[in-house]
Amino acid sequence: MRRVRLILAYDGTAYRGFQVQPNGPTIQSAVEEALSRLLCEKVRVGAAGRTDAGVHAREQVVDFSDSGKRPLETIRKGGNALLPQDIRILSAEEAPPGFDVRRDAREKEYRYFLHLSPVASPFFTRYAWHIEKPLDLDALREGLSHAAGEHDFASFRGQGCTAKTTVRTIFRAELSGEMPPLHFIRIAGNGFLRHMVRNIVGTLVDIGKGKMPPGRMRELLELRDRALAGPNAPPQGLFLWKVTYRIKETA
Amino acid sequence: MRRVRLILAYDGTAYRGFQVQPNGPTIQSAVEEALSRLLCEKVRVGAAGRTDAGVHAREQVVDFSDSGKRPLETIRKGGNALLPQDIRILSAEEAPPGFDVRRDAREKEYRYFLHLSPVASPFFTRYAWHIEKPLDLDALREGLSHAAGEHDFASFRGQGCTAKTTVRTIFRAELSGEMPPLHFIRIAGNGFLRHMVRNIVGTLVDIGKGKMPPGRMRELLELRDRALAGPNAPPQGLFLWKVTYRIKETA
Repeated sequence: MRRVRLILAYDGTAYRGFQVQPNGPTIQSAVEEALSRLLCEKVRVGAAGRTDAGVHAREQVVDFSDSGKRPLETIRKGGNALLPQDIRILSAEEAPPGFDVRRDAREKEYRYFLHLSPVASPFFTRYAWHIEKPLDLDALREGLSHAAGEHDFASFRGQGCTAKTTVRTIFRAELSGEMPPLHFIRIAGNGFLRHMVRNIVGTLVDIGKGKMPPGRMRELLELRDRALAGPNAPPQGLFLWKVTYRIKETA
Repeated sequence: MRRVRLILAYDGTAYRGFQVQPNGPTIQSAVEEALSRLLCEKVRVGAAGRTDAGVHAREQVVDFSDSGKRPLETIRKGGNALLPQDIRILSAEEAPPGFDVRRDAREKEYRYFLHLSPVASPFFTRYAWHIEKPLDLDALREGLSHAAGEHDFASFRGQGCTAKTTVRTIFRAELSGEMPPLHFIRIAGNGFLRHMVRNIVGTLVDIGKGKMPPGRMRELLELRDRALAGPNAPPQGLFLWKVTYRIKETA
């Protein structure tokens, strides 16, 4: 058996998230169907991070086992020929022995895009949260700074989150405004609870609107109560941006 | 009667072009339907430049006459509430007396986006022409430079073009590569024939692929024969970027 690691990019608009669901198309089902057809064997893929319905990935990492009959370049090209255009295989390589796409991920980076403008744009609706009223970006940035470091993120876990521990470490939490009216919140960490990034962003936007002071972010981390935090930000602004592994392994 | 001028942005993916067609939705029909419903009177709009099926507009200008009962801000906000999300009214203002959205346009700028990469991106497929093999961008740029100035563009007119004269003046023709792997060709002029920008781009990509030398562009302008130029570039890369009027008129 050979272990293969793929980097995928996808526009999540048309999908019910990464993981196979009883109803509706998912990224996992589309990829498994294309690879099983291409390789003439049953393929099951695992992912570095599961994305929810409507969430995008600039670089998602998945792995699977196969018999190794087809060269890796055939998997990339043939897979892309069979996949719908909104899912692309960016690269295919052999994974090192014992590699686990989920467990071995050292850092995951998410970016959440905000479109701050009185008028929506037809080009950003699929990829950003449109907010009409001005936000206090200094307050938002100050609130965001409290998320960095090791914290218990119980206040920001989503419904149905089954993680055993809610303690996670955030390595970087920054607001970038390089291309107004688009701004993005960049959050990188060792792991994330279900809906955690979107719940943090929803709370930060409430802070930017003046509904809460920036210091409320720190209090929420201490209070450990989901009911007290802000709303869940909509999915279309969120991108799984990059997954980094312990060692730069190539086959 | 009041004359109103709107600036529209639209994602043309789901539409059969600007102009009303017997089959399928168009930008014009969607805008006229929304405005007629909002104003409770029959509205007919004209556009600065008609865009083809699948072509986008960052700033299209349209005008129409109404009885003037509703304030302009209501037209913008109410229109946006009734329009689908892929068409947005960016602004509404009263046009000066005798204004004609088509005749008075002094300059139209189009941008055509190329995505030059061995692998497609799910985020660019709606908005750029994906080209897998590398292009000689210096050759493309040299070919493009021949398009600037006053020329007879008969070699680049599309099927069904009904213009009486095929002479047009191109003010600017540039290749920009500020954000690789995305590049765009910027063409601004006093007027354009049907499919002219896409036919020029298709020819330039043939030049970039080495199928024709850069000087062929100049020859094609002299030969005045559509059959000799390159293919029509696909619509999704094209944006009507900006329309400039003679005077900066505001009501």
